[in-house]
Parts: sequence; structure tokens; C-alpha cells
Amino acid sequence: MPHELISADSHVNPPPTIWADYLPAEFRERAPRLESTDEGDFQVFEGRRTPILGISSMAGKKPENYSWTVRRLEDQRAGGYDPAERIQDMDHDHVQAEVLYGGGPLGTQDRDLRRASYSAYNDWLADFCAADPRRLWGMAYIPCESPEDAVAEIRRTAAKGLRGCVLPRFPHAGGEFYDPDWDVLWRTLIDVGWPGGIHVGGRGRQAAMPRTDGVGFITDLMMSKFALAEACAQLVVSGVLEKYPELKIVSVEGQLGWISFAQYYLDHVWMKHRHWTGNELKRPPSEYFKRQVYATFMEDPVGLRERHEIGVENIMWSSDYPHSETTWPDSKKLTDEWFDGFPEDERRKIVFENAQRLYGG
Amino acid sequence: MPHELISADSHVNPPPTIWADYLPAEFRERAPRLESTDEGDFQVFEGRRTPILGISSMAGKKPENYSWTVRRLEDQRAGGYDPAERIQDMDHDHVQAEVLYGGGPLGTQDRDLRRASYSAYNDWLADFCAADPRRLWGMAYIPCESPEDAVAEIRRTAAKGLRGCVLPRFPHAGGEFYDPDWDVLWRTLIDVGWPGGIHVGGRGRQAAMPRTDGVGFITDLMMSKFALAEACAQLVVSGVLEKYPELKIVSVEGQLGWISFAQYYLDHVWMKHRHWTGNELKRPPSEYFKRQVYATFMEDPVGLRERHEIGVENIMWSSDYPHSETTWPDSKKLTDEWFDGFPEDERRKIVFENAQRLYGG
Repeated sequence: MPHELISADSHVNPPPTIWADYLPAEFRERAPRLESTDEGDFQVFEGRRTPILGISSMAGKKPENYSWTVRRLEDQRAGGYDPAERIQDMDHDHVQAEVLYGGGPLGTQDRDLRRASYSAYNDWLADFCAADPRRLWGMAYIPCESPEDAVAEIRRTAAKGLRGCVLPRFPHAGGEFYDPDWDVLWRTLIDVGWPGGIHVGGRGRQAAMPRTDGVGFITDLMMSKFALAEACAQLVVSGVLEKYPELKIVSVEGQLGWISFAQYYLDHVWMKHRHWTGNELKRPPSEYFKRQVYATFMEDPVGLRERHEIGVENIMWSSDYPHSETTWPDSKKLTDEWFDGFPEDERRKIVFENAQRLYGG
Repeated sequence: MPHELISADSHVNPPPTIWADYLPAEFRERAPRLESTDEGDFQVFEGRRTPILGISSMAGKKPENYSWTVRRLEDQRAGGYDPAERIQDMDHDHVQAEVLYGGGPLGTQDRDLRRASYSAYNDWLADFCAADPRRLWGMAYIPCESPEDAVAEIRRTAAKGLRGCVLPRFPHAGGEFYDPDWDVLWRTLIDVGWPGGIHVGGRGRQAAMPRTDGVGFITDLMMSKFALAEACAQLVVSGVLEKYPELKIVSVEGQLGWISFAQYYLDHVWMKHRHWTGNELKRPPSEYFKRQVYATFMEDPVGLRERHEIGVENIMWSSDYPHSETTWPDSKKLTDEWFDGFPEDERRKIVFENAQRLYGG
């Protein structure tokens, strides 16, 4: 009897030590390494010594004890990198399966090393998920410097058992995803049966870590949710989703409360401005949005009030484990509270079936 | 018996010829001038020859006939610059009074000329509104290169009968409005009894014209609404509104559909992250948001559904005349439709009383 929740957005936190094992031999000498000192543990990479990030591994802590960094690697929750620990934490939270993001490529200006690090991360993730492929659904990070390279990495990682992917909000190569060059990306996703996930991260064209002061962090985190509206809207308004009706896009960790407004307002602006701007969409934008765009949320009463406008089939709950916003270990208790009074079929779709259908679980 | 609507966000379109009349003598030779040719009318300024903007003056046109520019100055609706024509158009639309934005300073790199153009525009606007001060409520454009200069222009224009002001989303000088240097700005606004208006315009720190292609224009217009969330959130989360409980901020032309989510999510993030980020706000952000932040909208069924969460006292309808999104000449018919079934006191607040109270009409 499975647990009754699927988390459509959870995370791994691969330790700095994976790179030496997973990068091709030519890059291994330059791989990040872990340095343990009396002051704490550090990742050392390209001459920079950085403490271990903590905010992405706060599951189980009280907000009073949250911190940007942690002293030791062991202070991160082990479920972020150890699949056996992970499964235990999932059982404890009544979560049957998790869609896994997080980590991704190395932050380096060296293009070849960066490219190699996509595959290294994806290979590590595939091994992590191989511990229990029915419950651990890994999302590949896709390099988008060129359509050909993106397609190659999708095919390579789909063959390794990953279940979907993360695309950047804008192509790494510059330009726009709705340029015809990228058509091959959409065709490939349809071919392998993957939705294209676009994950929260940064606000403009460049992903960036949020500021860490008491004003910047809070506003940046909110604005990062609204930033997903743009990536989704561009694929709708440009006609990509019209051209590829089988393509599905997922707004990941973007919450829900802005979506019904975005759907309404895109229609409104389109009806007023499609003539002079020469927009050739055949139907109002919201029709494609509702047909092909999915969205994950953690806690969002505004979005749940608006669920019928957004589309009950389009919404997927997530625990965000082990990040600071996670509902772990109270996911069942919280979802039971939120959905009290909802029709049972709506609850089932949002906490389980939509994700199961989308990722073929 | 007054009309039953007040528009909390309408616009003027001062013609290029105002500058020669309103700039100080030392700048008049460099003022923009109007050039009429067989190809159409143009504004000539600093060596650039630009056609007359049309999209800001589409009132009464069908979307099929919208255009980015117009051929002749007379193709702009006269109510944008002629107060007698304006009053006629307001009567036709059942609008008793309008809060007037639009125009503002010259787009020039010459700092002295730009500074002078703020006052020139504000003086022109004061003259426009003097035709019927009970019905034309002008909003001064405030230069924010320094707090002292901002304060001086507020005091100068308040004395000339303007009713409020437009602040940029971020200080022109760089830095943040919540830096203590700007405290004098908030004290001055309270002193003259003005709310501080923050108007839609651009997406990041710099105001920018939207792109004009069929994907860029539509997504940029949507994203410009979400951009107001940041300006409002910073003033809330930083404690500016806590420190100045009498200060009122207006999100102008930003619509409503994102606000209840922003309020909810700021609280959520604040409760989880206030400890480690050192945020010292005493109460959850939404309390200050609801107490002191107002918002205007044109058409927004999502926001009206969420009105009780946002705050019925905080919402102000606007016609956006004569911009492309205007409800003119159907404002009464449309508002009657939207508010059908609403309690009468809620309708009155949203279409009339909140604006009347805020601007002392």
C-alpha cells in the first residue's frame, strides 16, 4: 500500500566530493575537494574556499535555528545525498515518490568543465535514484548552449533512467527558447515522454543566489516566484505550445498564487495588442497555459482557493525536502488540513495523481 | 450630483511643444520641438527624430486599429493635453475625478536638463489641472537623485496644488529607498498629506519601454505588474512602513491579482527566515501591507475575487484613460457588470471613496 503523497519538487544536495568520482579523467584534478579544518568544512574549487551551504538542508529544524551555512558536511541532512536515509525520511513523511531537483552543474567560467559537470551531476543523480527507481525520480540538468547539445544530454540521461529535466528559464546560449532553432528540443522532449521543467532560480535572465540580508532575501525569494511567469508566458505567447500540443512544461517551485492572474491578464493583453504586434496565436493564451503548463507548490492557500481557475489537473504539491521551505516531516498533517472540505478527487490529483501521470510513475 | 466613478490612475500626454514654454530660459534652445513633414509629425530632441507615440492614446479605438505610433499629433486624443476636452471625455465616461500620471521628465543624459524637466512637466501639469482642480488631480514626478532634491520638489509642487506624486521604483541615485537617508522623504510626504505613488514602468531597476514584438510586448506588460511587488515589499519588509504608520504607498497600474499571494508569501517567508537574516519587523509583513499599501487596477476579475484578502479599503479602480488598456468610454457599464452582486459599500469604496479619501478630494 503506497503512501498517499508524491512530492513533485524535492531536492538532493550532492556533497563536493562527487566531482572527483564523476567527472571525466581529464577534469578530475580540477574537481572541487572537501577541506576539513578546525573552523569547519569547506569546498575548495578554482582557488575559492566556500563554507558548506546550509539553507538548502534545513528539514527538521525550527526557523529559529536556520542558517545560511553549516559548519560540517554532516550538519546537512543525510537524505540529501544518501538514498537509504532519503527513503527513511520519505516514509516518515508519508511520501511515496519524489521528483528530484537540486545540485546541477559546477559554477565555473570554464566552458568545457562546466559542460562536463552537467553529465557528471546527472550520472551521480542516476546512481542515487537507482537505489529505488520506483520512488526516486531524478530530473536531469540540461545544458542549453546549443540545441544539439541539449538534445544529446536528454537522450543520454533518459537512457540512464532519469524521468524528466530542468531547463534554464532562458537559453544559456542567449536568444529565446521560442527561436525556431530550439524546435528540436521540444520534439525531443515529446519523443522521450518528458515534461520540460523550469525551476525557480534568480530573477532576470541570469540565475543568481538571493541576497542574504533581511530585506533582500525575503523580497528576492518572492520575486523568484513571479519570474517563472515570464518563462511560461513566452512559451505560450510565442506559439511553441500551440505548435507542440503534446509538450508539457512545469513551473517548478514557483507556487500558484500568481497563475490565475497571469492566465487572465495574458488573455486580456493579447486580445488588445495582438493586432498591432502581429501575434499569430490562434486561441487566447490561457487555453494553452491550462492545456500544457503544470505548476508545483509547497504551501499556498491563495493558489488553492484559485485552483479551479488555474486548473486542478495542473497543480502538483511538493514537500521541497530538504530545503528551508519544506513541509517535512508534517506533509501529511498539513495537506490533510489544507484539503479538508475539498472533494477527494481534487486532493488526490493535487497530491499524487497529477505527478504520477506526468512522470509516468 | 457628481458622477459615481473616480479613476485612480489616468494619464496626460503633454505634446512635445510644452518644453519650450515651461523649461527655464537657459534650456529653451535645447527643448524638444515638433517637426511636421509630409511623412508625419516628429519630435526632434538632441538630434533624434522620433514619431509621435500612439499606444498611450488609444482611448475610443478598437484593438484592430491600435498602433505603436501615430502619424500626426492630432491623431492623439485631445483629452491628453486639452483640459476642456478632457472634462468632456470624463463626463461621457461618468468619471467625476481623475488622478493624473503620465509624461514626466525628458529622457536625456544631461543631468541639469533632466532635473529642470521635472519641474517643467510638473508646472505644465499644475496648469492643466487648474482648469478644474476639483476634478483633475495631478501627480508630481519627483526626482530622486538626492533626498533633499526630492523633498524640495514635493514642497514646491504641493504649493502649486498638485495632489500626490510619482516616485521611481528605486532611487535614481542608486541604493535603496529604505536606506535611512530617505527618511526625510517619508516624513515630508506625511507632512504634506500625500501618498507616495509607485507607477508601473519597466521591470528591473531601470525603467524601460516594453519590447514591441508580439511575444515581448505581451510578456513585458505582464511582468511590469509583478515588478511592483518588489517596490512595495521592500518598503514593508525593511520596516519603513512600520516606522511611519501614517505613510501611504500606492501601487499604480499594477493590477491586483498578485497581491494576496504576495501578502501571504511575504508572511510565510518572513516567519521562516527572519531569524537568520536578522529581520527586525515586529509584525508579519501583510499587516503593514494591508494597513498602508493601496493598489489601482483597470480590469481584474482575479483581484476582485480576492478583494477581501487584499483589503477592500486598499483597492482603487482606474480607467487608465487614454492609454491602450483604458475602459473608456464604457467604464460605468463595465464596473456595473463586475460589481453586480457585490455589497454596495464595497463597490463605492473601490470605484470612488478610497481614492477620494486618499487624495483628499
